[in-house]
Amino acid sequence: YANETEQDLAAQVAKLSEQVAELQKQADSPAISFSGRVQLDYNWFNGAYNANENGSSGSDLFPRRVRAAIDSEFEHWDHTLLLEFAEGTAEIIMARVRYSGFDNGLRLQFGKLREDISLNALTSSNNISLIERSSLADTFSPYFRWGASAYQYNKDNGLRWALGVYKNDAFGSDGEDDSGKLALAYTGRLTWSKTSADQVWHLGAWHSERDMGGNELAARVARGELRETAVRLVDYAAGGDVVALDSLRQSGLELAYQLRSLTVEAEYALRTLKTFDNSSLLDGTDHSGYHLSVSFFPGGQQRPYSAGSAVFGQPKDIRNAWELVARVSQLDTANAGQGTDVTTYTLGGAYYLNPKVKFMANLMHSSVSGAGQQALSGEEDSGTGFAARVQYLF
Amino acid sequence: YANETEQDLAAQVAKLSEQVAELQKQADSPAISFSGRVQLDYNWFNGAYNANENGSSGSDLFPRRVRAAIDSEFEHWDHTLLLEFAEGTAEIIMARVRYSGFDNGLRLQFGKLREDISLNALTSSNNISLIERSSLADTFSPYFRWGASAYQYNKDNGLRWALGVYKNDAFGSDGEDDSGKLALAYTGRLTWSKTSADQVWHLGAWHSERDMGGNELAARVARGELRETAVRLVDYAAGGDVVALDSLRQSGLELAYQLRSLTVEAEYALRTLKTFDNSSLLDGTDHSGYHLSVSFFPGGQQRPYSAGSAVFGQPKDIRNAWELVARVSQLDTANAGQGTDVTTYTLGGAYYLNPKVKFMANLMHSSVSGAGQQALSGEEDSGTGFAARVQYLF
Amino acid sequence: YANETEQDLAAQVAKLSEQVAELQKQADSPAISFSGRVQLDYNWFNGAYNANENGSSGSDLFPRRVRAAIDSEFEHWDHTLLLEFAEGTAEIIMARVRYSGFDNGLRLQFGKLREDISLNALTSSNNISLIERSSLADTFSPYFRWGASAYQYNKDNGLRWALGVYKNDAFGSDGEDDSGKLALAYTGRLTWSKTSADQVWHLGAWHSERDMGGNELAARVARGELRETAVRLVDYAAGGDVVALDSLRQSGLELAYQLRSLTVEAEYALRTLKTFDNSSLLDGTDHSGYHLSVSFFPGGQQRPYSAGSAVFGQPKDIRNAWELVARVSQLDTANAGQGTDVTTYTLGGAYYLNPKVKFMANLMHSSVSGAGQQALSGEEDSGTGFAARVQYLF
Repeated sequence: YANETEQDLAAQVAKLSEQVAELQKQADSPAISFSGRVQLDYNWFNGAYNANENGSSGSDLFPRRVRAAIDSEFEHWDHTLLLEFAEGTAEIIMARVRYSGFDNGLRLQFGKLREDISLNALTSSNNISLIERSSLADTFSPYFRWGASAYQYNKDNGLRWALGVYKNDAFGSDGEDDSGKLALAYTGRLTWSKTSADQVWHLGAWHSERDMGGNELAARVARGELRETAVRLVDYAAGGDVVALDSLRQSGLELAYQLRSLTVEAEYALRTLKTFDNSSLLDGTDHSGYHLSVSFFPGGQQRPYSAGSAVFGQPKDIRNAWELVARVSQLDTANAGQGTDVTTYTLGGAYYLNPKVKFMANLMHSSVSGAGQQALSGEEDSGTGFAARVQYLF
Repeated sequence: YANETEQDLAAQVAKLSEQVAELQKQADSPAISFSGRVQLDYNWFNGAYNANENGSSGSDLFPRRVRAAIDSEFEHWDHTLLLEFAEGTAEIIMARVRYSGFDNGLRLQFGKLREDISLNALTSSNNISLIERSSLADTFSPYFRWGASAYQYNKDNGLRWALGVYKNDAFGSDGEDDSGKLALAYTGRLTWSKTSADQVWHLGAWHSERDMGGNELAARVARGELRETAVRLVDYAAGGDVVALDSLRQSGLELAYQLRSLTVEAEYALRTLKTFDNSSLLDGTDHSGYHLSVSFFPGGQQRPYSAGSAVFGQPKDIRNAWELVARVSQLDTANAGQGTDVTTYTLGGAYYLNPKVKFMANLMHSSVSGAGQQALSGEEDSGTGFAARVQYLF
Repeated sequence: YANETEQDLAAQVAKLSEQVAELQKQADSPAISFSGRVQLDYNWFNGAYNANENGSSGSDLFPRRVRAAIDSEFEHWDHTLLLEFAEGTAEIIMARVRYSGFDNGLRLQFGKLREDISLNALTSSNNISLIERSSLADTFSPYFRWGASAYQYNKDNGLRWALGVYKNDAFGSDGEDDSGKLALAYTGRLTWSKTSADQVWHLGAWHSERDMGGNELAARVARGELRETAVRLVDYAAGGDVVALDSLRQSGLELAYQLRSLTVEAEYALRTLKTFDNSSLLDGTDHSGYHLSVSFFPGGQQRPYSAGSAVFGQPKDIRNAWELVARVSQLDTANAGQGTDVTTYTLGGAYYLNPKVKFMANLMHSSVSGAGQQALSGEEDSGTGFAARVQYLF
C-alpha cells in the first residue's frame, strides 16, 4: 500500500466483505424457512358419483388443500412441519425430523412420515399431473403416519431402499388392538433408476405388513378419482358388510419411463385380507388394481426425477407451458358376493403460468361393476366427472 | 485514481455497495412475511342480553381474535393466508391469491375472499372504531367466502368497482341445494370517493344475489353488537319459525364524510327473502337496518382513507391518542307475526398507546321490539352492555 | 487523507459499515421470530394403568407435543403466540403480550398466561428432566389461562413476586357460574433465590383462590405420570361421585437446591374444596401431595437457573451428555369413602445429543390405595409403566 490510510481502508473493506458474506449466507439458507400451497377446486359429477340423487348432476367449489410448512435446519438435522388448514380444523400432515450425518447417504427420520408406498402416492400434491391421484394410490397408501424410517440411495448401482415402522392408524384401524396394545405397520420399498439427460428408467417394488388389531377395514377404500362426490365408488363392503381384520398384507410394482417431455407411469398393487374371524368368507380375499398414465409437455419441458427420493417433480422455472395427461385406472374389491370393481378414464390438461401458479382441468368417466354395484349405485353403473383447479405455491 | 490500490479498493467498495443494497431490499420486502393480532375482551351485560337469567348481569373474559397471517409475493402475484386460532380450532379467515399485473389497475383474486358488502363490514377488525361492528354489518355481510372476484379503482373519476362470485355457504346455507349442486352468490359494489388533505367524501352501493338452495335461513341474524351474550337480540324467527329459502337478495347504501379528525359513517341495507315454499307468510318479507356513527380524535389524528380498497384505516404512527365514538344502529326483522326489531346506542372510547397497542371501552344500550320480542326475551325488552378490549398487533 | 479519492472511499466505507451494522442488528433480533418443538413418545403400561383389560399390557406411540411459536417485539412490548397442533385440532397454548418498560423490572402481561403455580409445572416441557411432570403439578396447575398478571424480581434481596387474575375455566369449571357470570381465579407466588457459580437455593410458596361457579370438579385430577394409559389413577370420585364446587383454595411450597450438576427439587401442595351443597360430605375435604426429585449430570453439566422467572432450564450448548433422574411422588384424594391415593416412583435417563435433540427413557411404578381403589382398578392396585421420547427443538 502507498500509505497508512490505504492500509486502513483495505482492512475495513476486508472486514465488511466478511460481514456481508455472512449476511448473504444467512439470507440464502435461513435456519427457519416457510412455504405453502393453496389449491381451490371445482368439481362437477353425475351418474354413479351422485347415485343418491338418481344420477343428476352435483357440484362443489372448495379448498382442496391449504397448507403451510415450517422448515428448520440444525447441523446434520432438518425438520419439516407441514400443516393443513380447513374450516375449523388444522391437521399435521407431516412432522419429519431427519438426520443426514452419515457419509454413506443413509438418512434416518422419525415423526409423521410419508410411508414408502406407490410412486403416485409419493409424488407431492404440488406436482401431480392430474388433479386427483389414482384409485390405486388412494387405496393402498396410508400417506403420512407416525413412526420411524431409514432410506439410502446408492449412485453407483442406482438402487434406493427405504424401510419403516409406523403406528397403523390407517384404513379404519385406530392403531391399537382390543386390549389397548399398539398395532404397527412395517413398510419397505426398493427402487432402481437409470437417468441420462434425455431418459429416465424407474423400476420399483414395495411391500407392507399391517397389524389391524381386530379393527374393521373402512368400507370406502377410494372415491373414484374425484374428491367431493356424494358416492365413493370403490367400496368393498357395498352389498355386504365391513369386516374386522387381524392384519393385511399389500405389495406393489412401479414402472416409469421418461423420454424428454414424455413421461409414462404404471403401477400394479395387491392387498390380501386376513380377517379376525377365520370363518369369514372374506378371509384371504384380495383387492387389486393398476393405473397407467402418460404425461406430455408439447413445449418440451421435462419433469425432473429425484433419484434420492425416487419420485418425479415439477419442471424447474416452468412458464407459459401446457401439459397433456391421460390415465386409465382400475381397482377391484368385489369378493364373496359384495364389493365393487371400478375403472376410470381421465383426460387432463394443465397450464403452468409460472413456477408458482398452475391451472388444471380434468374430465373423467368411471364405470362400476361387481356384486355390490347395485347396492352402491342402483341403476347408475357409470358416472362422469369434471374437475378444475387453480394452484398457488409460496 | 492516484494509484492501483485505490482503484482496487474502489472496485471492492462498489461491489460491497451492490451486495448491501440487495440485502437491504430483501430485508425490506421479504418474499414471505408475517403479521397478526391478539384481542382480549371483557363483556358485561344484563336485561334482554341475559333474558334466560331474568335479566341479571352476566359477564365473560375471552380471546375475541387471535390471528396470524402469512403474506407472500411472487412477481405480480401476492397471497395472504389469515388464520384464526381458538380453543381446539383453527380457521382459515382469508386465503387470498391476487394478481395485479394489469396496467389499468385491475385486480383479479381467488380463494377465501372478503365479499364487498358494507363499509363497516369491510373495515379490518384491527381498525374498527367500536369493539363490535354494527348489526347491519353482521346481518348482511357473510364476511369471507370461497370464490373469485375482480376490482378496479380509477383515479381520474374516483370510481371503484368490485364484482365477485362465491360459494354461498353463509346465513345458514351449506353451499349446496338438495341434490348436491353448488349454490352461488353474486356480489358487486360500486363506490365513489373524493379526497383532499382535509376531507374525504365516500359514496357507495352494493348488491348481492344469493342462491340459498332450499336451506333454512339462520334465525339469529345478529347478536346486538355485543359478542358473548346469552341471547342474540336480532332474531327473525323469534316467536315463529325459521324458513327455508330459495334465494335472498340484498342491497345497501354507504355514505361517509371525513373532515380532518372527524369521521361520519352511515349505511342502510335491505334484504328480501324468497322462500322455498311459495305459500310461506315470510315470502317477500324484508329485513332492513341502518347505522350512523361518528368518530373524533381530540388530538387531531386522522383516519387514512384507502381509495383503492374504499375503506378507512388506523391513523399512521399514532401514539398516546384518544378516539371518541358514538353510534346509533337499527335492524328490523319483525314480519308476519314473528321476529324482532332492535335499536342499539353505543358510546365508545379508545386509547392508542402506540401503533401496536390499543385499549377500548364501549357502553351500549339496546331495545327490542316486534312481534317476537316476548318469545325472545319476555319481560326484558331492553338491555345494557359494557365491553372492554386490549389489542396488540404484530 | 492523502487525497480526495481516499476521502471519498473512506466516506463510502463508513456508510457501508453503518448499513451492514443495521442489517446485522435486524438479523440478530428480528421483529418476528419462530421456534418450536416435536416430542414423539412411546408408552407401555400394565396393572392398574390398564385395569379395564385385567392389567394386561397396553402401549401407544403418539406425538406428545407438536408446537410452534411466533415471537414478536415492538419497543418495550413483546408477544409470544404458542400453538399446539394435533390430529384435527390446533390449540392456543400461550398468547402472552408483555410490557417491560418499567425501570424497576416490573413486568405486566395479559393474554393466555401460565399461572404461577408449582416449580415443576412452571418448568417448560422443553426442559423437564422426566418425560411427564409430577402428579402434583398436573393436579394443582391449570397451566395456561386467559387473564392478566404482574411480576417483579429484585436482585438485591433475591425475592420475586407474581400476581395474576384469570378466567377459571380449569379443573372442570367452564369459567362462569349458573347465571352466566365470569368466574375468576386469583393466584400469587413468592420465591426467594440465592445463586453462586456452584450453588442455587430456591424457596417458594404459592396460593390460588378459585371461583368454581357451581361447576363440578373433574374426577380424574391426574393420570399417574404416564400419558396414554387407559385408566387415570388419581381420581377423587372413584367409588363415589363428582362434586359441584363453590370454590377451591390451594397452596404450595417449593424447595430446590443445586450443587453444580446435582439438582434436587421438592414440592408440597394442598387443596381444600368448598362444595356448592354445604351438606356434602366432601365439603372442606383436602387433596394433597408432594414430590421429590433428584437430577444428576455425570458429565458435569449444570441446569441454569433463571432468577427472573424462578425456574430451571436446560444446560446451554449441551452435547453428548447424560442426565440421570429419580423421583418419588404422592397425591392423596381419598376422602369420605371415595377417591384414590397414588404413590409413584420413577427412574429416568436422558441423552442430550446436542442442544436441539434429546432422547429420554423413564421407568415408573405406581401403587393405588384409598376407599375408591377397588372401584377404579379392582384387583389391580399397582401398575408399571415405561415411556420413551425423542425430542427435537427448532
